[in-house]
Amino acid sequence: MSQHLLTVDSLNRDSVDHLLRVAARMEPIASRRQVTRVLEGAVLGNLFFEASTRTRVSFHTAFCRLGGSVCDTTGFTFSSMAKGESLYDTSRVMSGYCDAIVMRHPEQGSVAEFAAATNVPVINGGDGPGEHPSQALLDLYTIDKEFQRLGKSLGGAHILLTGDLKYGRTVHSLIKLLSLYDPLRITLVSPSGLEMPTSLIDLVTARGHQVEVRDHLATDFSDLDVVYTTRIQKERFTEEMNESFKGISDDFMVNKAFLDQRCSDSTIVMHPLPRDSRPGANDLNVDLNGDPRLAIFRQTDNGIPMRMAIFATLLKVDDLIEKDLRPVRWFVPSQLGTLDR
Amino acid sequence: MSQHLLTVDSLNRDSVDHLLRVAARMEPIASRRQVTRVLEGAVLGNLFFEASTRTRVSFHTAFCRLGGSVCDTTGFTFSSMAKGESLYDTSRVMSGYCDAIVMRHPEQGSVAEFAAATNVPVINGGDGPGEHPSQALLDLYTIDKEFQRLGKSLGGAHILLTGDLKYGRTVHSLIKLLSLYDPLRITLVSPSGLEMPTSLIDLVTARGHQVEVRDHLATDFSDLDVVYTTRIQKERFTEEMNESFKGISDDFMVNKAFLDQRCSDSTIVMHPLPRDSRPGANDLNVDLNGDPRLAIFRQTDNGIPMRMAIFATLLKVDDLIEKDLRPVRWFVPSQLGTLDR
Amino acid sequence: MSQHLLTVDSLNRDSVDHLLRVAARMEPIASRRQVTRVLEGAVLGNLFFEASTRTRVSFHTAFCRLGGSVCDTTGFTFSSMAKGESLYDTSRVMSGYCDAIVMRHPEQGSVAEFAAATNVPVINGGDGPGEHPSQALLDLYTIDKEFQRLGKSLGGAHILLTGDLKYGRTVHSLIKLLSLYDPLRITLVSPSGLEMPTSLIDLVTARGHQVEVRDHLATDFSDLDVVYTTRIQKERFTEEMNESFKGISDDFMVNKAFLDQRCSDSTIVMHPLPRDSRPGANDLNVDLNGDPRLAIFRQTDNGIPMRMAIFATLLKVDDLIEKDLRPVRWFVPSQLGTLDR
Repeated sequence: MSQHLLTVDSLNRDSVDHLLRVAARMEPIASRRQVTRVLEGAVLGNLFFEASTRTRVSFHTAFCRLGGSVCDTTGFTFSSMAKGESLYDTSRVMSGYCDAIVMRHPEQGSVAEFAAATNVPVINGGDGPGEHPSQALLDLYTIDKEFQRLGKSLGGAHILLTGDLKYGRTVHSLIKLLSLYDPLRITLVSPSGLEMPTSLIDLVTARGHQVEVRDHLATDFSDLDVVYTTRIQKERFTEEMNESFKGISDDFMVNKAFLDQRCSDSTIVMHPLPRDSRPGANDLNVDLNGDPRLAIFRQTDNGIPMRMAIFATLLKVDDLIEKDLRPVRWFVPSQLGTLDR
Repeated sequence: MSQHLLTVDSLNRDSVDHLLRVAARMEPIASRRQVTRVLEGAVLGNLFFEASTRTRVSFHTAFCRLGGSVCDTTGFTFSSMAKGESLYDTSRVMSGYCDAIVMRHPEQGSVAEFAAATNVPVINGGDGPGEHPSQALLDLYTIDKEFQRLGKSLGGAHILLTGDLKYGRTVHSLIKLLSLYDPLRITLVSPSGLEMPTSLIDLVTARGHQVEVRDHLATDFSDLDVVYTTRIQKERFTEEMNESFKGISDDFMVNKAFLDQRCSDSTIVMHPLPRDSRPGANDLNVDLNGDPRLAIFRQTDNGIPMRMAIFATLLKVDDLIEKDLRPVRWFVPSQLGTLDR
Repeated sequence: MSQHLLTVDSLNRDSVDHLLRVAARMEPIASRRQVTRVLEGAVLGNLFFEASTRTRVSFHTAFCRLGGSVCDTTGFTFSSMAKGESLYDTSRVMSGYCDAIVMRHPEQGSVAEFAAATNVPVINGGDGPGEHPSQALLDLYTIDKEFQRLGKSLGGAHILLTGDLKYGRTVHSLIKLLSLYDPLRITLVSPSGLEMPTSLIDLVTARGHQVEVRDHLATDFSDLDVVYTTRIQKERFTEEMNESFKGISDDFMVNKAFLDQRCSDSTIVMHPLPRDSRPGANDLNVDLNGDPRLAIFRQTDNGIPMRMAIFATLLKVDDLIEKDLRPVRWFVPSQLGTLDR
């Protein structure tokens, strides 16, 4: 693995396998049974030029759980950048203050530009329409973990990606990671105009996976292992798309009826969140709340061990942690254990 | 004590006594003579949907003093909630990231809704016109501590609540907590239209306390133990109230003259803060600054041990702390000790 | 050294020498080779009423590297001050929550007003046109450290201050600190209307230093040891200044040509940053990026050990640190060591 984590394109099967293994070793800490101090004295610069509370908090917590400290910065611009400071200068200055940097920025490529000027590890926390590699990694980790729980294996699995497959960066990154593994059956369902780019379909097919494209969900999915849904962002529709879409919207709704009638008891439901729960939003239905197949909160939980694994790997403490564990002394939420997660 | 701290209504005499005792045991840490690491590795999500610097910093410091880390979030909305995310989803996600959550939100009931979806302890840091239980607890702790210093006991004490008794949530919560104790004499003084709700007076009276309602302060208070003042928020006045209020405003002014002429040397003055020090604000007068009876800064200081007690109790480390103390090594402000606190 | 650090005027040769010595002892921690816990349990209130990301992060990291925790507050006003709270009340409340306070505020004198009401150490992080003493100290520390590297000594050195010498508070503070040392040659170059105040020139001259004032850079500087540049803030120009300035702007440009043609291989270039890298900004030229004489990023790096020294001295742990060091276990950026710093 290179010094930074900027894009899933820089990852190969070995580096992904390594991160999955390290994330699994982080579970006792992530689930609050043990604590470590391997990153004692280290400071994370958590730079969010664009608001994203959940991603910021997730990175923050992951770094703290390793024993480090975090300095958050939020806001649309740095005060100094408003005064004409270049990203190069900002990067050089910040890398003298921090031992690792997570950066989210609305402009594609800006995180890579920032990383080019620094010698501390930089993690891309999302650069607009660009990349968000830690999300794809936690998605893959979730699939891997759920499959282990269900006694399944990734090879030969049937995975449905649905919703906005054109603009959703998470599905683009996830499909690239999945393509590194044993041949899968991947079904793509999206409204007309929001299809997965053909370049990505070609890449996945070239790697030996079987890809099927459909334009509705009203068919048999009884062998489906995972449905990964993304919000259909109507605000991006052309007028033409809007007209055709109105009549078929129910065909793309992932809800309890779809799971019960079309899928199986072991089909898990994922979503990169946030989901839009407002009436008429056409997002993943809330009627699945409490259904054990709904894996979306286990999925966000998995962000902690995966981001810990990323930090531990980049800061080269992944082999030290086992030797630096002690039991947690405070209340462990799972001792209550009554919620449906 | 239940899993969360959402309202003083869920507290009984035992749980309040427990918190007062634990807070007292936190004093060596709160006053920077000792440090502990009992919450090592724990992360507090300090979620302030509404600005409140002092409350946020107080909770932040209390958690740090127990050895934990804090992730602050401030701003009117979560970025994901702006995208239509439900409070349920936000809560489920955040409880996978944090070990305890403090939440302030402008809408009454929202903190309880948030708490219903999580299995980590949630503390209500103020939900609009609703509750702010840690403020009432630190107020009670202050009275208890001041009385010990003065050799007084709570039973039979005379306590004056004055100012806006209709809209001030702190006096509502405090009077409920006081009512759990031995019979008191409680005097209520407020301008016409800002009286304490009769339901609260009935509750306190039913519990054996003696309540007297007056409409001015121009009388003998030589046996008064505590005057608890709140800002009269003129912006809430009706036109009618405004007219009648103008003529009597001095009757509600707590200042040095009132203390010197009507009260005694051992009457302490409290206020939930902030107080409005602008000319004409009619709030607690600054001419009491430096007077030892002014307990308002000792009161805010007491927020630290009380909030530590709340965290320690909810996270079940209240019995561990005595075994995990070491001396502080850095400068202790009280070594300077020249300021009038 | 007094309880606070509000202005360089309160520093004498002894206290500055002490801070330089302590900063040097902080280097193993600042450069991530060792960690300490001397400030365990201490909480810094990092109060930025005015945005300044780099200064806030620098103080934050310095406090963390000593083992303490930091509570950041950013925003133009405190929420409670918007409700009419006095700076006195805010200060009294915050000093019950924090063990040290860094405060930046747009109004000159406000930090001193805040400090007068508290018994915890307060560091002025910049009060508008007033002071920013830690910047001047890190500038002096940088000159001292660079001179040691180059085998030079401060006595007899030739230092050029250029740019806006009228409004730039950093050059005012720096020249005061420099004046405490053995006689120097100081050259001042600024456009007409932006000259160094004569009161400061008189002070420095009275202390035995040789001061020369010029109105352009187009002359021999082959014996120059340091060029300290500040941005010329055109927005502050009068119309008259604007007209005369246009024609001579290149005479004030510090760039590679100036360094190569007028100065020497051992002339170092400093700047308080941020520098304006936009075309036409007339600030320190980016064509020096990568040139070893460009010390601006070493300068910001030095902010960490100097701010650690300030905290350690004010909190009286400066003599404890050597006894509380352990090796860092995580990745050290300098192990990559390929960047041109």
